[in-house]
Amino acid sequence: MAYFNNAATTFPKPECVYKAIAEFCAKYTGSSGRGGGELTAGKLLNSTRNLLKELFHTHRHEVVFTPTATLALNMIIQGMVTDGRKNIYITPFEHNAVSRVLYALGEKYKLNVEEMKVRPDFSYDLERIGYQFAENKPDLVIVSHASNVFGLVAPVEEIFALAKTYHAVTVLDMSQTAGLIDTDLGSLPIDFAVFAGHKTLYGPTGISGFFINPEVDLPPILYGGTGVDSANQSMPDSLPARFEMGTMNIWGIAGLNAAINWLKETGIENIHMQEKENRQRLLDVLGEFDFIKILGMNPKCEYVGVVSVIIEGISSDSAAPIFDRLGVDVRTGLQCAPFAHKFLGTYPAGTIRLSVGYFNGDEDFEKLREALEYIGDNL
Amino acid sequence: MAYFNNAATTFPKPECVYKAIAEFCAKYTGSSGRGGGELTAGKLLNSTRNLLKELFHTHRHEVVFTPTATLALNMIIQGMVTDGRKNIYITPFEHNAVSRVLYALGEKYKLNVEEMKVRPDFSYDLERIGYQFAENKPDLVIVSHASNVFGLVAPVEEIFALAKTYHAVTVLDMSQTAGLIDTDLGSLPIDFAVFAGHKTLYGPTGISGFFINPEVDLPPILYGGTGVDSANQSMPDSLPARFEMGTMNIWGIAGLNAAINWLKETGIENIHMQEKENRQRLLDVLGEFDFIKILGMNPKCEYVGVVSVIIEGISSDSAAPIFDRLGVDVRTGLQCAPFAHKFLGTYPAGTIRLSVGYFNGDEDFEKLREALEYIGDNL
Repeated sequence: MAYFNNAATTFPKPECVYKAIAEFCAKYTGSSGRGGGELTAGKLLNSTRNLLKELFHTHRHEVVFTPTATLALNMIIQGMVTDGRKNIYITPFEHNAVSRVLYALGEKYKLNVEEMKVRPDFSYDLERIGYQFAENKPDLVIVSHASNVFGLVAPVEEIFALAKTYHAVTVLDMSQTAGLIDTDLGSLPIDFAVFAGHKTLYGPTGISGFFINPEVDLPPILYGGTGVDSANQSMPDSLPARFEMGTMNIWGIAGLNAAINWLKETGIENIHMQEKENRQRLLDVLGEFDFIKILGMNPKCEYVGVVSVIIEGISSDSAAPIFDRLGVDVRTGLQCAPFAHKFLGTYPAGTIRLSVGYFNGDEDFEKLREALEYIGDNL
Repeated sequence: MAYFNNAATTFPKPECVYKAIAEFCAKYTGSSGRGGGELTAGKLLNSTRNLLKELFHTHRHEVVFTPTATLALNMIIQGMVTDGRKNIYITPFEHNAVSRVLYALGEKYKLNVEEMKVRPDFSYDLERIGYQFAENKPDLVIVSHASNVFGLVAPVEEIFALAKTYHAVTVLDMSQTAGLIDTDLGSLPIDFAVFAGHKTLYGPTGISGFFINPEVDLPPILYGGTGVDSANQSMPDSLPARFEMGTMNIWGIAGLNAAINWLKETGIENIHMQEKENRQRLLDVLGEFDFIKILGMNPKCEYVGVVSVIIEGISSDSAAPIFDRLGVDVRTGLQCAPFAHKFLGTYPAGTIRLSVGYFNGDEDFEKLREALEYIGDNL
């Protein structure tokens, strides 16, 4: 298969990730902090937290591991809402991991959820966002760093600088960018930053997490054993234990640790450059075919390697099995982000999404070209 | 290390588990239901659900995967409480994954949480439990199938039969028993049964779940993308999608699938028999030393291979590094279950817990004997 579904999960992973998991899980017990002989697991956890802090240039945040980015977003958003935040700003491109949480809590907590203004040419209208904030002071500002539908990158620095003039809590969803776009969490006004271990960090499934600014008081929404302060029936106050209930996916941590070491060795800027090159190759191949319409492009905006297209004559819903039969792995439909499609004008049918990673090569692009030639011949 | 911490995570896993993960994750993308080329992941998921239904003899439940048993318990208990259940019965031996959830919601939802009566000899007093239920009708009855502190097995069938005369919703926490005690979910009056993939099911960390009786309406407490019905801002009604938001840990599923196949091939009754034998060997070794006091034993009760002891002259908190240095892996303290220790009279110092699995062998018991001899000589 030519793999163009990297926005769902990057594939393949660096060899060292597979090796690290195999080695760790056969040698060590896999619990952490729960017994005398589990020092290795504890060390691995600490080392992975430190690697993440280094990768994101921050000492002022603590790293909390969660099984998925979706859980991290639930913990942050639900926690902030139950703590009284009512005026919530989001981008027009949020994933259901954000929008469904807000929808579920909206009525009960009388939330006022507003989309920040983006121009029809896909550029963020910072002036109007300033007016929006002035009219209705933001309590919580959530920004999807890059759209999982068409790759558009948000101007985080400017939006969060504006948000901070109102002392809003700021949340950056880096599911599509962590480990790809070099982001200085240490100096940016970011309270929470969510990462997905199995996407642009090139780790395994089952391990993700978030950075938290310890100065923000986040009430927990999930409860359970942490291995520390067990007599206390409240969750412990200490970070990261307050948010790490239940058995840690230490096998996943072993893989993520290896993945981040690979990112460091390869160089995040080299990976980003390769990914940009692969995105351009993807756009070039797609551009060869008249029947393909690429959506959401503005040369002045920044993008990651996620591209949405429609094919005239083929509904996006029915495209998946066609590409599948032709040996090309894509994702079709709404990609769990209906609002991005409303903005693009592709709601409710959705698009065909093709997303590249570091490892896409000549064969993939050749196979895609052949598939599109076949589709063109049979339209 | 002689590994006596199987109640935290069984170790080692069957060889096939390591192999299955290595094979799956190198070959397949690891997403499921999110793209055309991911049929293998989808098949693997379905096959694992079916294996679990078969193992637990049920067709009437649906299987929901969660990253941890703690999350499953949060979803079930929080869901049932927000749906209006107020009178909640638990055993005196619940883990913090149950008790902390109830504590967190208790005041807000005006919960009445009661412990079911257990006699000082550790037998459940079904007559008095009957009176308790009659006086204060149960809405929700939660039973830890086996104590994670001292292995006592609860008489589930009798308790839930009583609970069902009041139409209570019944929850069985099988974290210490799933795959070990053959349990017929199909015929027992159980609405929810929680399993931990990495314990007695011998799978990897990061994958657990619960059985749900589809006739019970459980409101979701976590929200996000499911890959189905993405336009809808409510979570889908269909099971298991309603409770499976975010990227599935498909690497973990690959391992769990192999583990359950191993359980089937080995035979759950053979594994249980071996575990009982290993428990007896553990008790025999411990019984050789006068300074060791084994807690919570009643020959008339049923137990799994989890044993708690105290050593006169050594506080349980300080025992972990001693055992560690002697090459024996145990877990000390409260084991995230403070109420069980209150019952045992070992609160707040806790105990030294030794737990066996299928794979404990001669060397482990010999090493334990040597360690205890050394400790005895140095008391």
